[in-house]
Parts: sequence; structure tokens; C-alpha cells
Amino acid sequence: MERITSRKNPKIQYWRKLASSGALRRETGEMICDGAKLYEEAVRAGLEITSVIAADGTDVPGVPEEAVTRLPEDLMEYVSPMKAPQGLLFTCRIPEREIPADGSRFAVLEGVQDPGNVGAVLRTARAMGYDGVYLLPGCADPYSPKAVRASMGAAFQLPVKEAECADLEELKSRGVALYGAALFEDSLDVRDADYGRFAVCIGAEGGGLTPRLLGMCTDIIRIPMEASCESLNAAVAAGIVMWESVRGSKWRD
Amino acid sequence: MERITSRKNPKIQYWRKLASSGALRRETGEMICDGAKLYEEAVRAGLEITSVIAADGTDVPGVPEEAVTRLPEDLMEYVSPMKAPQGLLFTCRIPEREIPADGSRFAVLEGVQDPGNVGAVLRTARAMGYDGVYLLPGCADPYSPKAVRASMGAAFQLPVKEAECADLEELKSRGVALYGAALFEDSLDVRDADYGRFAVCIGAEGGGLTPRLLGMCTDIIRIPMEASCESLNAAVAAGIVMWESVRGSKWRD
Repeated sequence: MERITSRKNPKIQYWRKLASSGALRRETGEMICDGAKLYEEAVRAGLEITSVIAADGTDVPGVPEEAVTRLPEDLMEYVSPMKAPQGLLFTCRIPEREIPADGSRFAVLEGVQDPGNVGAVLRTARAMGYDGVYLLPGCADPYSPKAVRASMGAAFQLPVKEAECADLEELKSRGVALYGAALFEDSLDVRDADYGRFAVCIGAEGGGLTPRLLGMCTDIIRIPMEASCESLNAAVAAGIVMWESVRGSKWRD
Repeated sequence: MERITSRKNPKIQYWRKLASSGALRRETGEMICDGAKLYEEAVRAGLEITSVIAADGTDVPGVPEEAVTRLPEDLMEYVSPMKAPQGLLFTCRIPEREIPADGSRFAVLEGVQDPGNVGAVLRTARAMGYDGVYLLPGCADPYSPKAVRASMGAAFQLPVKEAECADLEELKSRGVALYGAALFEDSLDVRDADYGRFAVCIGAEGGGLTPRLLGMCTDIIRIPMEASCESLNAAVAAGIVMWESVRGSKWRD
């Protein structure tokens, strides 16, 4: 067991930076996460845990005490990226899971900046049996503490790729339909789309999908709604479309 | 036109407190909101606007200048409840809209603490043509700046009631089915529920619905999902159930 009591300890500084800096996460291939529940999920997902950090007196089941780094409560709060730290932090390797080329259900996010929304989409994608999520430029880092927390561990399991439009062209060339979600008059009702092999594309909270991406889409799909409404929260919209895409074919005896 | 330059001005202090204190909002019946888009929505909803507050130099279309209170940029930031203030704030009367007794679609939230989730549910409920939302104890205040923002103005339009279990008993007595969302083995598949007159009940992020509320429900419904997953984000789950409840009957020619 190691015990750290100084804010100036280089590990403390490193962990804090890992929480706030996507660049450092990319450079080191490590991320920092909060809480026993996520720890369990990371272990279950087979991720390499690189350190376990716990407040003095916090029980860490399943981890030998000599593998735990102990911090006093106030230092734990200083390191933790969360407002309400749970007494346990850990760092682990960021998974590198390939999105399967023969997959049939994908989600694509463009410009979704809110880490809570990105995490919620990963969570739903996993629950709906999606094969992977493509993140186009402008999206929040899926491995930030907030996004991982919102994903409830889906970020550990689900193949995620930071992508470019070229990746979508390639998807299309493999026979995957690109469905862009947008409320145009002549958009296809989500209830009428063909959910064979497809990728659902969801745009930014404010502006929706860019014209460039809309131009690439096989079809534009819309969630019908009351005429006085213009849009839904990005994670809710993604959730409804993902549900609609599987409700006809899955989980029936 | 009035111009305020001091942080100590009582109006400044009042607006700041209105942003942070649900108790003050309840006491005064006023709320404070951020941005031109919400302002438009509030006017469209017929709310009584009690003050319009703008940064020096920010254009306020449609409001006579003598009705605007002007603040220097830094004071605007001091007052604004948002990290990225939009140069326009306003206060207005909290609407008092009765949930229609003859309505047929309702949502019930219990212990949903995140204002972003509460706002997102209101936004979806409005888009799906719901008649009103009941908020049981433990839910975030729907009239906090964050919740109103997340609702995209639905908080101005949709009847919302802070409710008790007795209100749900009354709903039931009027022939409204209470559907509690929970992932039990024997829950009814959301695809198989009868969406005549009903109220969808969604529980807290962590623990779901309380046993007391589950016990009151006419049926427990579940969104089918991959076996490795336990739940969805509360706003996403509510969105999927609300969509499922109307997809069979609405917006078809």
C-alpha cells in the first residue's frame, strides 16, 4: 500500500490532469473513473486497471490492500473529478475495440458537445444491442469522467471510434444505410425506415446535423411530434430512434 | 430604461437568489430564465414577463428600450445562472396550468433529481402531446434555470403539478392506468401495454421507483434491452416509453 498526503505529489497532479485533459488521455491511453460501480464494470469489461485510489477507511472489496493507493479525505476530494466523490477512484487503459465491419447497427454523433449526452447515447446503444458508435469532430470525449459516468460503463464495452466523414463513406460502400435525424417536412417517418443494416446519425443540440453530413445520408428520418415542437434533447432523440430501429426485430420469443 | 452598475443593488441580489432558490421561486411565483430563445417561448406561451435584463449593447428585439434593465457585461455574468450567459435574462410569472382532468396521457416522475433530466422529460412530454406531468417529492424544481433551459420552453406550456401519491390514487380512480417503468422479469413489455388512458411513472436514476409507488401501479412495464444492461438514463427511458405510447395512434394520415 502506498499512501499519499501531499497535493504536490506528481501522481496527484497526473490524476487531476487525466480527469480534465482529453489530450493527456489520448497521449497516455489512460482514463480516470469514479466509484465502485464503474470499477466493477471496468473489471467485467476486462480493462487493464492501472491504479486503484481510495480514501482512508473506504472499503475496496476484491482488491488486495497493497494494490491500493490511500489518500486522506480532503486530498481525495481534490483529485476527484466529481462533485460528490464516492471514496474510490481508479485509472485504467482506454479500450481499443474495433467496430465490427460486419455489424448492422451503428450510431453516429456529430457535434454533440455535452459529455452527459454522449455518455447517455453510449448507454442506450449498448442496451439496444448496437455494434458501435462513431463520433465525428465536435463531440465530447467519451472517456472523460462525466461521459463515462453517464454511460454507466458502456464506454468500457461498446466499440467507439473517433471518425471522419470518410469513415461514413466507407460504411455506405459496405451497404450500410445512413439515416440522418432531422425534422424536415419530407423526412421519412422513423416508423417507416428499413432497419436492415444502418447507421443512425444524430446532430448537435442546437443546429442539428451539418449540411455536409445531411448530404451524405441515404435518407433523412424524423421522429413525428407535435407541430409546436422543433426538436428533442439529443440523447432522447437518439434513444427513440435506436429503440424504434430494434423494436420490430428484437426480444420477441 | 434603468441601468444598474452595482452588485449590491437589491434587484441584482434578488435575481441571483431567484436563480438559486426554489423556495424563493415558490414564495414569489417568479422565475428567472436565460436567452432570447426562451424569451420568445415565454411570450408565445403568454407568460407575464416581469423584467427584461440585458447586457449593454445587446439587442433586444421587440422590447421597447425603456422596459429593459441594462447591466454592464461583468454584472450580467454575475447575475446569470448560466456558465455562458447569452446577454439576455428575463423574469416571469411561473405558470399555473391545471392538468386537465379529462386528459389521457400523463407522465409521473419520482425522485428524478437532475434538473437536466426533468427538463428533458418535459420537453419530450410536450413533443409527444402529453397532457401533463406530475412531479412527486424528490424531483428537481422544474422552474430552476437549468430545468427550464433543458425543457426548451416546455416548462412554460405544459401543465406540471407537484404531486403526492394521493394525486395518483385520484388519477387511478378516474380510470387512468398507472404504468411503472422497471426491469423486472415479469414486467409487461412496453410494446404490449394498452395506451388508452395512462400515466407513465419513471423513477430515480439510481434506485428506480419506490416500492410504495410500484405497489400502486396498475402494471409494471419494461423496455426490453440486452441482458447485460440494467437500465437507461431516466430521460431516455421516459422518452422511449412516451414515444412507444403514442407511436401506434398518432401522426398518421
